[in-house]
Amino acid sequence: MRRNLNVERIKLSDIGEEKVIETIFSIIDKETRRITLPYGDDAVAIKLPRKMNLVINVEMLVGKTDIPPGMSNVQIGKKVVTMCISDLAAKGAKPIGFLTSIGLRRDMNVRDLKEIYEGINIAARKYGVKVLGGDTNETDDIIIDGIALGIAKKVIPRSGAKIGDIVATTGFFGNTAAGLKILLESLPVEEELKRRILKDVYEPRAYIKEGCLLAKKGLVNAAIDSSDGLAISLHEIAKMSNVGIEINNLPITEEAKKFAEKTNIDPFDLVFYGGEEYILILTISKENWEKALNEVRKVKGKLIKIGRVIDERGKIMYKHEKEERIIEKKGWQHFTT
Amino acid sequence: MRRNLNVERIKLSDIGEEKVIETIFSIIDKETRRITLPYGDDAVAIKLPRKMNLVINVEMLVGKTDIPPGMSNVQIGKKVVTMCISDLAAKGAKPIGFLTSIGLRRDMNVRDLKEIYEGINIAARKYGVKVLGGDTNETDDIIIDGIALGIAKKVIPRSGAKIGDIVATTGFFGNTAAGLKILLESLPVEEELKRRILKDVYEPRAYIKEGCLLAKKGLVNAAIDSSDGLAISLHEIAKMSNVGIEINNLPITEEAKKFAEKTNIDPFDLVFYGGEEYILILTISKENWEKALNEVRKVKGKLIKIGRVIDERGKIMYKHEKEERIIEKKGWQHFTT
Repeated sequence: MRRNLNVERIKLSDIGEEKVIETIFSIIDKETRRITLPYGDDAVAIKLPRKMNLVINVEMLVGKTDIPPGMSNVQIGKKVVTMCISDLAAKGAKPIGFLTSIGLRRDMNVRDLKEIYEGINIAARKYGVKVLGGDTNETDDIIIDGIALGIAKKVIPRSGAKIGDIVATTGFFGNTAAGLKILLESLPVEEELKRRILKDVYEPRAYIKEGCLLAKKGLVNAAIDSSDGLAISLHEIAKMSNVGIEINNLPITEEAKKFAEKTNIDPFDLVFYGGEEYILILTISKENWEKALNEVRKVKGKLIKIGRVIDERGKIMYKHEKEERIIEKKGWQHFTT
Repeated sequence: MRRNLNVERIKLSDIGEEKVIETIFSIIDKETRRITLPYGDDAVAIKLPRKMNLVINVEMLVGKTDIPPGMSNVQIGKKVVTMCISDLAAKGAKPIGFLTSIGLRRDMNVRDLKEIYEGINIAARKYGVKVLGGDTNETDDIIIDGIALGIAKKVIPRSGAKIGDIVATTGFFGNTAAGLKILLESLPVEEELKRRILKDVYEPRAYIKEGCLLAKKGLVNAAIDSSDGLAISLHEIAKMSNVGIEINNLPITEEAKKFAEKTNIDPFDLVFYGGEEYILILTISKENWEKALNEVRKVKGKLIKIGRVIDERGKIMYKHEKEERIIEKKGWQHFTT
């Protein structure tokens, strides 16, 4: 039997996360009857009786890659819940339960374990959900797999963006990228600015109220969370909806703006090529825009108009006054970055 | 502020898995309204509309502790699915979906990844379920968190055993313990016997048909799977049902019997203190016993009568002719063993 040795020796680091996922999807039998979101959307959705959908999202937090230096145990716990709930928010699903499958080092202190679960419990409470159970294992690095369960009458797909839709976000970007630069590259920044930037790195939040309310009122055509970065998320929505997106307004935090000025880093990079921000990106028809704004204000949230859906498939652009730039599909990818 | 340093320095390896789980449960807010199985049962069950229950089970496979030497990639994939489906079987839930949250080494071959998912897909197909999605991460050791979803009109709890019930299993025990001894202690055993024993280590199966059918017909009072070993499983059923259990018949495989004879190892240890066998342990009233036997035969399964539920709370005994032995609550525990 002849064997193609080259093919067999290809490593995951040679192909990157996107191709790893494609490889997995190429092997498994696909479910077609039961699911109401396509493969590759933010979460899995299954039909339930009475026209309800069960929405499930799984996220694995890995010590080595997902815990920035200086994050406390309580913050680690909170982050796992936020990571999972954020995708339910993007799909407009109301959380009904949370599970954890956890891998711990045998030399971990009981106190650290307690603090992590205190964090999990605080965040779960904030998002109106309870920990129902899970699994416990021994590992060499801390691994927390969070499983969030939610229900929704109608789930918002990534694929529903319509030409002419307004593209909006529920928050401003840039602090996570700036914060990781501060932590990992030790950039000199004044204490107060550093504190405010790092707060978003250590205590990200999910926009569950905004997501659920807008979905319930049927005001959103497409949605995604921005955990992979704003650029990748815009590309995903565009790809799955067969459209293009033009951004005219850079949704940058005041802190990231100041940080960019002081460090001479391009604010464009901080906003588009970060990640782990858990802000929702939504496309909303012009007719629904005012209604959506009003609804979101009721839960003390905001909607920032950043651009519009255009008729040029796959084109993701930033245009502002005379500036025109391509927004590349880049950001964090496991195995290669 | 005074601090109790001793308490803070206690490690997970000092307290073991059972106490780790207790610690977690002591911190989290408990759900009381939505769930239909108590905390600590094999799986989580949530009320759905139309008197249905959603049953969720999560199991983390960790390379270091859960992959015996010589297990192939395809077998690793199959094992994850079996681990998860087995608890649905114990609760009588019909599988409706499977998710994986996977941590992979960046230097892993693409071919290995493919083989693992081929295994996952083969097992999923066998149990009538499809992979719906999941998460992908980079880790130093292989981690596969499997999430099985099922539905059931009525879930079988661990806590339903009634005094006088017959205690039965869906298979024979001993091959896993014998197999691990062969692999880890390199015991000399003839090839054919070794092959038959290792087959159960490398290719465990879940008893989903038996579990679902018996639950649907309402013939079982309590059930648990034996992934933690027969002894621990009997103790769990007894504890949660406030009863005792007397075993009169040692459910040992022919292979384990031969192995015990040749190696002079106590067959009692092989049967009770193994683990990862995924055989169901059920308690069934005398009135339902014949019916249960007939039903199980329809799906080509079996029920082995091994003992009965007794009125002495917490007493777990083996009695056969003149032999009388205590079955201790021991087996595999993370962090300490």
